Amino acid sequence: MCVNGTEERRAGEPSASGVRADKVVREAAELAAEAMGSVIAAPPAALDEALRAMAGLLRADLAPVRAANEADISAASAAGMSAALLDRLRLTPDRLLGMSEQLLSLATVPAEPGRTKIRDLPDGLVVEERRRPVGVIGANFEARPNVVVDIASQFIKSRNAGVLRTGSAALSSAASLADHVIEPALAQAGLDPRLIQVIREPGHELASALVRQATSLPLVIVRGSGASTRALAAEGAAHGVRVLAHADGGAVVYVDDSASPQLVNAIIEASLDRLGVCNRLNLLLIKGSAWQRTLSAIQPLLERLGVRASLPPHAHELGREWALEPGREATITVSQVTGPAHAALVANEATSQLAACVIAADEAAAAEFVGGYAGTGAFHNAPPRLLDGFKLFGIPETGINIDRVPGPRGPVTFRDLYLRQLVVKPKHSAA
Amino acid sequence: MCVNGTEERRAGEPSASGVRADKVVREAAELAAEAMGSVIAAPPAALDEALRAMAGLLRADLAPVRAANEADISAASAAGMSAALLDRLRLTPDRLLGMSEQLLSLATVPAEPGRTKIRDLPDGLVVEERRRPVGVIGANFEARPNVVVDIASQFIKSRNAGVLRTGSAALSSAASLADHVIEPALAQAGLDPRLIQVIREPGHELASALVRQATSLPLVIVRGSGASTRALAAEGAAHGVRVLAHADGGAVVYVDDSASPQLVNAIIEASLDRLGVCNRLNLLLIKGSAWQRTLSAIQPLLERLGVRASLPPHAHELGREWALEPGREATITVSQVTGPAHAALVANEATSQLAACVIAADEAAAAEFVGGYAGTGAFHNAPPRLLDGFKLFGIPETGINIDRVPGPRGPVTFRDLYLRQLVVKPKHSAA
Repeated sequence: MCVNGTEERRAGEPSASGVRADKVVREAAELAAEAMGSVIAAPPAALDEALRAMAGLLRADLAPVRAANEADISAASAAGMSAALLDRLRLTPDRLLGMSEQLLSLATVPAEPGRTKIRDLPDGLVVEERRRPVGVIGANFEARPNVVVDIASQFIKSRNAGVLRTGSAALSSAASLADHVIEPALAQAGLDPRLIQVIREPGHELASALVRQATSLPLVIVRGSGASTRALAAEGAAHGVRVLAHADGGAVVYVDDSASPQLVNAIIEASLDRLGVCNRLNLLLIKGSAWQRTLSAIQPLLERLGVRASLPPHAHELGREWALEPGREATITVSQVTGPAHAALVANEATSQLAACVIAADEAAAAEFVGGYAGTGAFHNAPPRLLDGFKLFGIPETGINIDRVPGPRGPVTFRDLYLRQLVVKPKHSAA
Repeated sequence: MCVNGTEERRAGEPSASGVRADKVVREAAELAAEAMGSVIAAPPAALDEALRAMAGLLRADLAPVRAANEADISAASAAGMSAALLDRLRLTPDRLLGMSEQLLSLATVPAEPGRTKIRDLPDGLVVEERRRPVGVIGANFEARPNVVVDIASQFIKSRNAGVLRTGSAALSSAASLADHVIEPALAQAGLDPRLIQVIREPGHELASALVRQATSLPLVIVRGSGASTRALAAEGAAHGVRVLAHADGGAVVYVDDSASPQLVNAIIEASLDRLGVCNRLNLLLIKGSAWQRTLSAIQPLLERLGVRASLPPHAHELGREWALEPGREATITVSQVTGPAHAALVANEATSQLAACVIAADEAAAAEFVGGYAGTGAFHNAPPRLLDGFKLFGIPETGINIDRVPGPRGPVTFRDLYLRQLVVKPKHSAA
């Protein structure tokens, strides 16, 4: 699950020149690459040891981290940041404890098997598939200091190095977490502390620079939705960089005529618990035969939630994403369909194919919807808000990707951050 | 394994305008997309039935196919095509039988499991990972009529539709195979015959058009190496299309000082059985302490093979790919390294990371090389010519990809041609 609308979109903000930004990113990538050797052959225990060391340092609530965070908050407050965003910026003791617990939890997740036998070949040879680290991975994410630690831990867990770039509002906190938590923890575990590099300069130009260095950063994860993510994904593609992102979201819920009204209300309410996120209910499709009674049944709920239903005829596109419209987030689009196949088609064609749900007691109708829907997550009688790495897999997500191509798709986790390598060797070779 | 240098590189050849080419490709993709419905829910038996029907039609050595192939050969011969390329163009009865047998073999390969349970969730729900077809996939490949059937069969096996584009020399054969083999076989198996579309117009402009339609063709496989592939991969990326390709190749062989001289000669000879292919020996790295005796030992072999060794100091880049240099294919570059780690570093940095081999009796040295080499295929005491889908997996390869990102990498097969989808549903739901 991502949070929309939190990324900087100040395309015209004063920034270092592109050349300088490229140099900053390139130098960070070089330092991170030099540190790769320390993880490529490290035992899994060393990686988990680094995560546990980070957890310990976070629990210590270090004075320099607290001071850096307070500086970020003062500056953001002076610049007029909203209370909600200020809250997300703040590293409270509770939040530090939560970050620490997440690291300890990730440290207990078994490493993925590095080698899988494919088959025997003639001449006493064997083919294995191996998982290799990608190398240095780029990450661009919202101005929340906890995400720095979150992403860093996932890169470490998957034996990758990283260049991390966050919004300027969280920059002091991010740098301080790198200096006082991530680096010492890596060193404590016997790993090269340069493995995780945090970009320490503000400016969206740095985000652009992050996605145009195909040689040193072939893979970049961009979190957050909307126009700036769309622009970064396009810029990355043009430079031969694979960007995992989801600029557009908005979940679809289809109400079949076999749906129980109680479940309809429960799923709609669960799908609107947060309005600024990508996998919230955005488009409600109702089967014609259930149209009137469903509208009547959900009306009191929508009123209670303060959510407006945009009914046909619509003066906007069916897939319009309300989470990205400041001030109009509390809206859902409601439209009529002829049945599950039609609903799946509309979900495929009118949306980014992030997530869709069918509410139906009739299992044939549910199967028809799920079979027809091509998106990254399909939900039967379960809210699309479950499209989230932690909820689905029990491990944190690195980002979300909605490309319609093979490879990581939907919630991306540390388990996805590897290169496939084939190895052929004599059966008894230790290579 | 791919064959280099066989793709058209006539950037300036007369062609339909880009606009017209885009229209031709888009219309083909639309027809193929309309046919997707017939495979998305078809039982695996129907897909294999289509392959068997194709096999049967090929064995019938149909008169229209033979006539179309003879027309292609006459035209190519009149245009001065070399005897070797003319041979590759010819659909002899033997070759038709071979194509037929390959189809029958693919039809016996079990379908990949479509659903894998990930874990139980609270509230009686379960998470599954599903494999969905990509949809319509593009393919651009060398002017060999058998490849039309090969690629079509892999798309059908993986429930995908396709838009196939081959070089103009094979165009009549390709169209005839589509009309008289692929389409009737699909119809016979109860599938929509429009599933596989073959572009029926000549011109490299069509290849460009194939990689710039991200909406209808999000994934394109480009076979062959060299400048035209590199250009298509870049053009595709700029248009947001994921192109699986390997513009550059050239295998590396590292000779450790623990290598048996017999094995060194055997692997070098096996790695030079064809000089125009991407995974042939291109760069031979020898450990300093074994330099003189290895050079002496391989000299008679190279003389017998008629292969020139380019020794240091080199007047060219270390990774220069001789397979792409007409008239100079019978060359290998030979260079000295300090040991397995250095050899892996050179292989990583001087080449496209397609394939590399370590020849060593010392297993620690072999492990050091394989552990350090980041390429798509690593080989211990086995020739890098084994980097080929059929040799490694026993199933035909669709293409080869050398991107350094998660997803299909190295030989790509039908098993890779799917989208990941997560499905959450009540434990006993049939959806």
